[in-house]
Amino acid sequence: MSNKIVIVNPALTADHRERIAYLARKGGYEAVFYETNQEALPAMEDAVAAYGLGADLTAAGKQLAWFHSMSAGVDGYLQEGAIANPGMLLTSSSGAYGVTLAEHTLMVTLELLRRQPEYEQAVAQKKWLRGLKQRTIKDSTVTIVGTGDLGGEIAKRFAAFEPEHLFGVNRSGLARSRAFTRIVKQEKVDRILPDTDILVMALPGTSETYHFLNRERLALLPDSAIVVNVGRGNAVDQDALAQALKDGKLSAAALDVFEKEPLPADDPLWDCPNLLITPHIAGDLTAPYTLEKNVELFCDNLCRFINGQPLERIVDRRRGY
Amino acid sequence: MSNKIVIVNPALTADHRERIAYLARKGGYEAVFYETNQEALPAMEDAVAAYGLGADLTAAGKQLAWFHSMSAGVDGYLQEGAIANPGMLLTSSSGAYGVTLAEHTLMVTLELLRRQPEYEQAVAQKKWLRGLKQRTIKDSTVTIVGTGDLGGEIAKRFAAFEPEHLFGVNRSGLARSRAFTRIVKQEKVDRILPDTDILVMALPGTSETYHFLNRERLALLPDSAIVVNVGRGNAVDQDALAQALKDGKLSAAALDVFEKEPLPADDPLWDCPNLLITPHIAGDLTAPYTLEKNVELFCDNLCRFINGQPLERIVDRRRGY
Repeated sequence: MSNKIVIVNPALTADHRERIAYLARKGGYEAVFYETNQEALPAMEDAVAAYGLGADLTAAGKQLAWFHSMSAGVDGYLQEGAIANPGMLLTSSSGAYGVTLAEHTLMVTLELLRRQPEYEQAVAQKKWLRGLKQRTIKDSTVTIVGTGDLGGEIAKRFAAFEPEHLFGVNRSGLARSRAFTRIVKQEKVDRILPDTDILVMALPGTSETYHFLNRERLALLPDSAIVVNVGRGNAVDQDALAQALKDGKLSAAALDVFEKEPLPADDPLWDCPNLLITPHIAGDLTAPYTLEKNVELFCDNLCRFINGQPLERIVDRRRGY
Repeated sequence: MSNKIVIVNPALTADHRERIAYLARKGGYEAVFYETNQEALPAMEDAVAAYGLGADLTAAGKQLAWFHSMSAGVDGYLQEGAIANPGMLLTSSSGAYGVTLAEHTLMVTLELLRRQPEYEQAVAQKKWLRGLKQRTIKDSTVTIVGTGDLGGEIAKRFAAFEPEHLFGVNRSGLARSRAFTRIVKQEKVDRILPDTDILVMALPGTSETYHFLNRERLALLPDSAIVVNVGRGNAVDQDALAQALKDGKLSAAALDVFEKEPLPADDPLWDCPNLLITPHIAGDLTAPYTLEKNVELFCDNLCRFINGQPLERIVDRRRGY
């Protein structure tokens, strides 16, 4: 058996590489670094572990005992043939992206409530526009669907803005974060939608979450509501959302994730009214905190792997996260 | 002496008018309502009290015992000839705008850190741009100049984003809000500027705060710093700020207030790089919470006025707030 650990993360600094190489060497392994999956693929043949992103890596790793994904969402590894070694342990970077995704969520929520896209359009034309009707998070009712690392980080920040209610929605009816004023079980979500001003979708992409926010649920929201999706694109029925925006049945929405990415150049969504589009950048690795946390999570697991301890953030492939 | 109280606030609802009229009548006064200052001016001649915005009202109110300003900033009333009755009590709506101004401040701070103006420009061209280097409030050092209602509301929200340091700057070195990790006296601000990532200006407009953020202080900030001004325009040396942005001596800035408003159509600031301009809409009356709070502050003072109790939020005209 080889002692090779493949690392594919182009964002790593020299310090990161040194730290990872040192930890590996101390444990009797060799860390080999690549900038792209393409370059790394030949080395995956006999790698025993790897840290990177993409099912092409796990599909090539016939001897992989462990793969640590740079992403928090792992739906990409769950398709047929995505993992060459059936016994491979898959761990995720859940916990690394909550902070940056939460900062994004608060930003776009405030942009929608404060009519910032319209103000910025006026300013781009050097127009001194005033008087558009703004709203505040203060005294609004916020519902966050998904109460894991992401939902919890989002809730903590919303709480400081003093909403009237801060509901969390999940399967168990229980949540670690104390920021929520109430946790509502998923099957009862329809009861709180009519009172929701701000609906935040923070769900992982699994078969269970597919089109969670469908046409029927969108219709339950008040016309003045806003929707923000930072989880997975297919948790929202995109066509139904666009129709609701066009019909004035929803005040505004912000999508960072889409059913198909990149969003095709001819997709009608680009021209949808009151829709704030961002190109899946709510949770990328560029923010220093996010990168540090990502590397830290991998290094923690690397030490556990070397010492034969149970890994953290193991993905339950049946549940999908 | 007349018993007339003039009200000029076009945002009032029928309920608001009814409440104000009822309180006045109960106290032996008559509330008269106008939509514009122009319409109200003749009635100001013999009004005993008024609620509105603008020195044209106070300049016309020769018999005014009390004027409650709809605004939090009151620098407009402090010029020569702005107040006809020297004995008039001036009260402000300080406390009504902190919430909406703070929501604006967090929004623009996040927009600058997350490169949102650039992303939105790409999206406007239907481009799927990715990879711009973002930053987080988390682990940043935030300095808020001004620790009153506004600075306190801003600090409370920043705290939830877990900055490394959250400094408040004021004259006394003491502050009511506990969100700050440290309060720094104004004369020592230069010591913390070199470590400041995010500088928020939340100062009222007085002679003392004029060009508080001048060329020398801008030079003390790291090149990577961002500046947000939501207080008064002349607390920042606008030309020096623009020059710093052009020279790459400052990463980005967001201004909602300007030395001259509306910003003239030919002002070079419109074309300044990395500058997010908003047309003085960070603290307007359109948000329902802000309007309610504004009316509440006036009604509280109205009851005090009627009952001969000391008014709240009296402006010290020497200090200027």
